[in-house]
Amino acid sequence: MNLVEVGRVVNEFNKDIPEDYKEKTSEIHIHEQYSEALLGIEEHSHIVVLCWFDRSDRTIQQVHPMGDADNPLTGVFATRSPVRPNPIGVTVCRLIERKGNVLVVEGLDAYEQTPVIDIKSYTTKYVIDDPKFPNWVPDRE
Amino acid sequence: MNLVEVGRVVNEFNKDIPEDYKEKTSEIHIHEQYSEALLGIEEHSHIVVLCWFDRSDRTIQQVHPMGDADNPLTGVFATRSPVRPNPIGVTVCRLIERKGNVLVVEGLDAYEQTPVIDIKSYTTKYVIDDPKFPNWVPDRE
Repeated sequence: MNLVEVGRVVNEFNKDIPEDYKEKTSEIHIHEQYSEALLGIEEHSHIVVLCWFDRSDRTIQQVHPMGDADNPLTGVFATRSPVRPNPIGVTVCRLIERKGNVLVVEGLDAYEQTPVIDIKSYTTKYVIDDPKFPNWVPDRE
Repeated sequence: MNLVEVGRVVNEFNKDIPEDYKEKTSEIHIHEQYSEALLGIEEHSHIVVLCWFDRSDRTIQQVHPMGDADNPLTGVFATRSPVRPNPIGVTVCRLIERKGNVLVVEGLDAYEQTPVIDIKSYTTKYVIDDPKFPNWVPDRE
């Protein structure tokens, strides 16, 4: 199962993802050979961006969520931690603008030069009315 | 960028995904070496399941969404079509039960024996209040 890189993240997050990343802008530079796959994307206000967190440890299976030792030790499959066997990030972003092969988005939690592996339309399939989750999950972040 | 298989889908979808898949049950059999990553997952009512659609064409960049020729030709990055350069499915499922390394879920749109590559907690990060998308996207499916 080999991934291809379809684009790259361009932003100012070189060392850390800022706490207010949801208000920050990033660009996604889609490689020329995948430009046809963008047809019509500007009709969406939001997109789902899949990144490959190439700086993440793939061997860690349990974490204290959000790096807080007060949160109970939790399996990575029960978190959104970037450390996991396949370090794929799934982030819903606002699509501000398309400029050719460049997507300008708001709310991406990925470092500068992170490989992008997929983009999907955001639909109401992602909306669950009354989800239950542990107390350490911040509500309505 | 090499993916590892962390589990497999077990269900009755051998040839087609049924239209009422959202009401259908599947099992996800997590491989033994990743069982630690499941710690605490049963506290979540919903999980995000990432599958590798190993039967999908990776060369197609544009489709008529949902196989309907009346829908406009659209780039796969503006759809949820299973055909795409990296055929990763992202599906929010209800977690009915955990039985050891087996997760019983409702609403998975993957064939029998599809490789599972990641599982994440479902949180309100996936909820957008007023998304805009083209008319061909079914609302509140």
